[in-house]
Amino acid sequence: MENKEKSTIVLFSGEMDKAIAAFIIANGAAAYDHEVTIFFTFWGLNALRKDAPVKVKKGWLESIFAKMMPRGADKMGLSKMNFGGLGPKMIKHVMKKHNALSLPQLIELAQEQGVKLVACTMTMDLLGLQKEELIDNIEYAGVAAYLGDAADAKVNLFI
Amino acid sequence: MENKEKSTIVLFSGEMDKAIAAFIIANGAAAYDHEVTIFFTFWGLNALRKDAPVKVKKGWLESIFAKMMPRGADKMGLSKMNFGGLGPKMIKHVMKKHNALSLPQLIELAQEQGVKLVACTMTMDLLGLQKEELIDNIEYAGVAAYLGDAADAKVNLFI
Amino acid sequence: MENKEKSTIVLFSGEMDKAIAAFIIANGAAAYDHEVTIFFTFWGLNALRKDAPVKVKKGWLESIFAKMMPRGADKMGLSKMNFGGLGPKMIKHVMKKHNALSLPQLIELAQEQGVKLVACTMTMDLLGLQKEELIDNIEYAGVAAYLGDAADAKVNLFI
Repeated sequence: MENKEKSTIVLFSGEMDKAIAAFIIANGAAAYDHEVTIFFTFWGLNALRKDAPVKVKKGWLESIFAKMMPRGADKMGLSKMNFGGLGPKMIKHVMKKHNALSLPQLIELAQEQGVKLVACTMTMDLLGLQKEELIDNIEYAGVAAYLGDAADAKVNLFI
Repeated sequence: MENKEKSTIVLFSGEMDKAIAAFIIANGAAAYDHEVTIFFTFWGLNALRKDAPVKVKKGWLESIFAKMMPRGADKMGLSKMNFGGLGPKMIKHVMKKHNALSLPQLIELAQEQGVKLVACTMTMDLLGLQKEELIDNIEYAGVAAYLGDAADAKVNLFI
Repeated sequence: MENKEKSTIVLFSGEMDKAIAAFIIANGAAAYDHEVTIFFTFWGLNALRKDAPVKVKKGWLESIFAKMMPRGADKMGLSKMNFGGLGPKMIKHVMKKHNALSLPQLIELAQEQGVKLVACTMTMDLLGLQKEELIDNIEYAGVAAYLGDAADAKVNLFI
C-alpha cells in the first residue's frame, strides 16, 4: 500500500516561528492523508526537548550546550523581532487570541495524526542530547533514513 | 491542459536578500513556462505590503507589529551584513550598477509573467495585516491551497 | 542513462552549520548514487572561497564585501550561538571529538564523490567575487541551469 503521498520536512532551525510553520504544513499534509516525516536536526532538535531538566551525565561542553539551547518547544525564540523574549510572548498572545494552536499543541496534534517525528542521531551525539531528554514517541535515525523518505516524497522542505 | 511543470515557493523570511532569491527563481521558472506560486507567510508577507501607510483599524498589538515590520519590498533588511540598514543600501547600489532588477521590479515582473502571489490568510490574521495594506493582484489562501499546489509541483522550496 | 535519481540543494546561507547540513545531505545522497548538485548563491558562495587572499582587481565596494565576508568554509560563523566566533570553535571541537568530518573535509569528500558544485555567476558579479578567488573544480552557472537540474530532481532543498 505504497500509494499514499509522502512529504518530508527537515527542521534545522531552532526558532519558534519556523517550527510553527513546519508543524502547520506537516499537520495540513497529514490531514490530507499524506505520510509526513519531520526530521529534526541541529537547532531544530530543541523543539523535541522535554521542558523539565532531565538528570543525565554530560561532559562540560555538552552541559553548556544544554544550558544555552532552549529547553523545548515552549521556550524557543523568534527568527525576527525576538526582542529578548518579548516577541515570542507577543506571538503567543496573538495566537491564543485567534484560537490558533500553540507550538506544543501543534506537536501533540502531529503525533496524534501519525506524523513521524525523527531525531537526527548524529546531531544528538554532537550536541550531547540524550534520548531521555527528548519527548516520547519519536524515532531516531540518520541522514540515510531521511534520504530514503525524501526520495519517495513529493514535497520536501528544509526549514 | 495540466501538463505544465509546476513550482512552488514558500517565502517565510522577511529579508530582502532571501526575497530576491525567491523572485529570481520564480521568474526564471516562469520564463521556462512553469506555473509558479509563491506563498507568503509570516515575515515574508512584508514583501507584499504597500509602501505607503494605509488607514485601517487595528488593535494595539497589531499596530506595534505593523510599525516594527518593514513596510514593503523596498524597506526590507538583509539576513547578513545588514549593518543597521547600510547593507541593503550597498546591495541596492551594486544591483543597480549591474543593471539587476530591484526587488520591487522583480515582483512586478513576476506579476506580469503570471506568477501567482498568495498571501497566507492565517498569518495575516495573526499579524493583523489587512487586504487593503497589501499590493493589488494577489490571492489569499491558507495552507490547504499551498499543499494542493505543492503536491503537483516538481520543485518546492521553503525560503 | 538518465535513470539516476537527482537531488539539488541551493546553498544561500553563509553559516557553517547550514553548510554542514547541506554537505551531509549531499554526501549522503551521493553515497546512494544520486546525481547531486549544490548551487551556491549569495552568502553561500563564501563556502567556496579559498582561505588565502587572492590578488585580484576590485572596486571599493567589492573590496569591502570581500573583507566583510568569511574567506572560505573554515571561517564561517554559526546561525545560532555564534558568540563572536566562540560557537564555531566549540562546534569544531565536538565534531573533531566525535570524528565527524569538518566542513572543508565534507567539501573535499563531495568533490571526490562527484557532487557538482556550482557557483552562481549572477551573485559573483554582484558581490565582486572572481573565479580565481574560489576553489578549483567547480562549475559556474546561472538560475536557468539550476532550474534545469531541479526540474528533473526528486529532492530539492533551499538552505
